[in-house]
Amino acid sequence: MASLPAGATALLSARSGRVRTASRLARRASRAEHRLFLAEGPQAVREALEVPGCVREVFATAAAAAAHPQLVARTRAAGAPWQPVDDAALSALTQTVHPQGVVAVCRFLDRPLADVLARAPRLLAVCADVRDPGNAGTVVRCADAAGAGGVVLTGESVDPYNGKAVRASAGSLFHLPLALDARTTDVLEAVRRAGLLVLAADGRGELDLDDAEDAGVLAAPAAWVFGNEAWGLPAGVAALADHRVRIPIHGRAESLNLATAAAVCLYASARAHRRR
Amino acid sequence: MASLPAGATALLSARSGRVRTASRLARRASRAEHRLFLAEGPQAVREALEVPGCVREVFATAAAAAAHPQLVARTRAAGAPWQPVDDAALSALTQTVHPQGVVAVCRFLDRPLADVLARAPRLLAVCADVRDPGNAGTVVRCADAAGAGGVVLTGESVDPYNGKAVRASAGSLFHLPLALDARTTDVLEAVRRAGLLVLAADGRGELDLDDAEDAGVLAAPAAWVFGNEAWGLPAGVAALADHRVRIPIHGRAESLNLATAAAVCLYASARAHRRR
Repeated sequence: MASLPAGATALLSARSGRVRTASRLARRASRAEHRLFLAEGPQAVREALEVPGCVREVFATAAAAAAHPQLVARTRAAGAPWQPVDDAALSALTQTVHPQGVVAVCRFLDRPLADVLARAPRLLAVCADVRDPGNAGTVVRCADAAGAGGVVLTGESVDPYNGKAVRASAGSLFHLPLALDARTTDVLEAVRRAGLLVLAADGRGELDLDDAEDAGVLAAPAAWVFGNEAWGLPAGVAALADHRVRIPIHGRAESLNLATAAAVCLYASARAHRRR
Repeated sequence: MASLPAGATALLSARSGRVRTASRLARRASRAEHRLFLAEGPQAVREALEVPGCVREVFATAAAAAAHPQLVARTRAAGAPWQPVDDAALSALTQTVHPQGVVAVCRFLDRPLADVLARAPRLLAVCADVRDPGNAGTVVRCADAAGAGGVVLTGESVDPYNGKAVRASAGSLFHLPLALDARTTDVLEAVRRAGLLVLAADGRGELDLDDAEDAGVLAAPAAWVFGNEAWGLPAGVAALADHRVRIPIHGRAESLNLATAAAVCLYASARAHRRR
């Protein structure tokens, strides 16, 4: 086994109070109570450390400490404890089959919608009742890649701090301003007041995505709204949008899945914004 | 419980030989030996029945038969037995938590690459060493939606008849010509001889996707090659492509995931083909 870095404290086991308290953050109720969540793996911990004040503590095996000396240094520089744990404790804190030996306890990142809008984003992604954590995390990742200025989760959407959502975001959860809001209709009204065009991704929408691009509709700053995986957007929400936009289906598929549809829509806007 | 449709045979249990034989198709070795696979749920069975000769038999609960009388009729019209089973037998044949009561035993759909190329496709998706069944199935779905003329899986790619891949394709596996080939380099050479431009999706590629579109590169008939989720395309494969194309990353994400990247690339070609 690799030796502990200088100054490390003793290994904690899975039975230690700190490990048990942190492991409860796998449950949504515990996350909500403490406004804390877990981020697994060196990449996610590295991204979390870039957000001032986000990382509260890091649990890691001796092997991970030896493999990632810069991560140990950055954690200490951020004023967060680097806490050595044994393999069983690490397993208790992680959900993946092959955890990479390190997990950070992070403070919630979401901020009020008004703060996100105050930064005058030109592209936003709004997830309305998106239920699958993998989809929510992938939309965050796509929004980041497409240069969006924020992601908003509304209604009955999945908790973006769910472990699977955090992993699917591949670090992007730490890059983008995030807001959570219960009422989709209020969010769309606020977004429109902030000067953004509201575009509902809707397989039965009246406007074809390519036609929207050709007509210059996509050149305006915009918020894309993506609905539930099974039933899409409620009619009342779709009606609030400036346009309901459908991705053209050239073959015999009935639709695209939510994450791939979001990627196509967000990249269409990104392209149009850069060609203005 | 709903009554059986007229003419139905007796319920089979999970212990019956036919159910046990079919349930072994959850394993790749058994699928490969018999060149048969399982498609779960009424939508997939309906799509399978559209492919002449594909469905060998259908297992279904009495409730599913009552809920889908047209499916019973279409199965019989296709000359395939509709076999009533009890709930335990249906569970033994399905992998989802909420199976929808019906599963078809289907004949393999792949055909020689030469047959796929003989149809002169203008857009192809090639998965080279794509390992995740959800990704492979989602690429098939996106390729179908984008109007591609086929999908080719090469090298160490996952079995497209894996249950999760079939489900992720959402019926598109039954829509598109499919070829499987062990040697990626041979496939790319055959594809190029068939007059297709070979475009490698590569996060470090020399050509930006938007620039490729602006320069008219995407207007040509093309095969997109997508690599492994973790390590991308081997250098030897990337070097064989006419262009290595990167999706622009406008934010701080390191990359897109494979399925969303495939959606963006395939739709960029679909758009360019229609604007020629």
